[in-house]
Amino acid sequence: MSEIRQDPTIEEWVIIARERAKRPSDFLRKQARSQLPAFSPSCPFCPGNEDKTPEETLSYRNQNSQGWRLRVFANRFPALTPGGSTTRREEDKFFYYMDGIGMHEVIVETPVHNRPLALMEDREIEDVLRAYRDRYNTLRSMSDIRLIIIFKNHGPGAGTSLEHPHSQLVATPMVPRHIRMRLEVAMRYYDDTGRCVYSDLLKHEATSGKRLVMETERFVVFHPFASHRPFETWIVPKTHQACFGNVSAEELASLSSILRLVLLKLYQGLNNPDFNYVIDTAPIGDEEKEYYLWHLRIIPRLTEIAGFEIGSGVYINPAVPEETARFMRELKLE
Amino acid sequence: MSEIRQDPTIEEWVIIARERAKRPSDFLRKQARSQLPAFSPSCPFCPGNEDKTPEETLSYRNQNSQGWRLRVFANRFPALTPGGSTTRREEDKFFYYMDGIGMHEVIVETPVHNRPLALMEDREIEDVLRAYRDRYNTLRSMSDIRLIIIFKNHGPGAGTSLEHPHSQLVATPMVPRHIRMRLEVAMRYYDDTGRCVYSDLLKHEATSGKRLVMETERFVVFHPFASHRPFETWIVPKTHQACFGNVSAEELASLSSILRLVLLKLYQGLNNPDFNYVIDTAPIGDEEKEYYLWHLRIIPRLTEIAGFEIGSGVYINPAVPEETARFMRELKLE
Repeated sequence: MSEIRQDPTIEEWVIIARERAKRPSDFLRKQARSQLPAFSPSCPFCPGNEDKTPEETLSYRNQNSQGWRLRVFANRFPALTPGGSTTRREEDKFFYYMDGIGMHEVIVETPVHNRPLALMEDREIEDVLRAYRDRYNTLRSMSDIRLIIIFKNHGPGAGTSLEHPHSQLVATPMVPRHIRMRLEVAMRYYDDTGRCVYSDLLKHEATSGKRLVMETERFVVFHPFASHRPFETWIVPKTHQACFGNVSAEELASLSSILRLVLLKLYQGLNNPDFNYVIDTAPIGDEEKEYYLWHLRIIPRLTEIAGFEIGSGVYINPAVPEETARFMRELKLE
Repeated sequence: MSEIRQDPTIEEWVIIARERAKRPSDFLRKQARSQLPAFSPSCPFCPGNEDKTPEETLSYRNQNSQGWRLRVFANRFPALTPGGSTTRREEDKFFYYMDGIGMHEVIVETPVHNRPLALMEDREIEDVLRAYRDRYNTLRSMSDIRLIIIFKNHGPGAGTSLEHPHSQLVATPMVPRHIRMRLEVAMRYYDDTGRCVYSDLLKHEATSGKRLVMETERFVVFHPFASHRPFETWIVPKTHQACFGNVSAEELASLSSILRLVLLKLYQGLNNPDFNYVIDTAPIGDEEKEYYLWHLRIIPRLTEIAGFEIGSGVYINPAVPEETARFMRELKLE
């Protein structure tokens, strides 16, 4: 029979549907992806097309060399833009809204059109993570910014139409209710126990090992007890820190090598699946809180949510996290 | 510039992304659907294959006639099943779970393989709605049931693999946190104002007419102020009633004709898009509450959510509800 499990970090239930459960290998991507060229003349992110993008806000370049290793600029179709006011306005004294102020940036991770993160070297991934942190720390001090979400969409099923490897960063002028809920759960847990719920989670997963994918000196990687979706993967740091912007250079270097291994395992084990990842970090002003711990969450897009999820907010997950974690743990890289 | 709008029923923000905004007609489905036959020998829901499904829990049949008009039975791959215990168990005194108890049923809406709801006659849709209510009222009295979600997934992008027109019903042993949040917002609004937030919402939409699709004696149809997705459509009753199981026969008849028109407009206006719908209704035990109003929510699946939505809980909607509602309002049916 199925199990209904509670996610301890948000206190929502998830149905682990054993009757519908598939084996981990059933999630292997069957469709072939079209072979991408290393350079695509019409791609706005490829070298030579720099004038098709907005002005760079950051770039990494080698000395005594022509090109660039990484570029950051405003999204050409931004969800949020600077300027405007956070004053709440109303329609009929019933509906509330504000200007869509904030920032929306694109991080082009490499000049090479067909070089996904999973196939990069550690130092290239370290560049990407360093760019995330650099931009985070520049934008956190902008007025009116309350939260910065750093994320990546890989493949059409994960909501991207551009193949060239890139990530995005959106800085919002409000703390979403969804994030407030996460913070409330963590705060209550801290008040009750004196400990951070994410640190406790990490310790339980490292100790039991049941859902562990890998562990290094600085990070623990696991499939959560109440995974929303098959192969959901969390990378959680052992050093307590609420804010991603405060991570050390050593942690970034360590994260780059573990992120590469995790993405490579997904790439080889599931045949390059569509996925999103997001860095969960504390809102601006909560960076020093004892009760929150930044982490990186990878969500492969192997199943579609449907009416039940939309109506209830509860996910039906047709994979058992203990089985998918074992699959990934035991997978030998080629 | 974009607008950040607050959904008054759940107090979450939505970004209406004007810079990314598409015209309503841009959402027209381009891919042709494969032509379906009226009968498919291998379809477990087609007549003649009744023995491939679990035992009927309900069916509608004509007197002096062989076949059936509608059948209900347990899902063969159920997310939840009867039996077991709601006692919470624990792993390491940190993770909580319970047995996956409940019910998961399939409603086969018609014997005809290629007859979607949008192309049915009112009386056929009335059968479907009556079956929803009949099963709701049978299952609400089962022990341990706390919430009943009735929903439909149409098309592969909406999470279904079976083409034969069908809906589903899942009865859960817990009230999800997501639903508790909706109820909390509604309860607080009621305590502050003495009114139901959904009734006020309905009145505002009917009066302003900006986002109105249609209005009848008993129902108001609109695209919400803070629509999560393009062409999200709500059908809200004018008669106050927290629980869908308590709707009258007259209301079901009236709902069947308005649901047909709304689905037909989507079918013709957007070329048979994938969609989900769900009936939002009060949890068991809250059926008499003054502060909640059942309603039907249609979510066309025209865009993919991505990393930003997963990380923040905030949707970026690339369509402006006032424009999509006008498009639907002015659409002439063929």
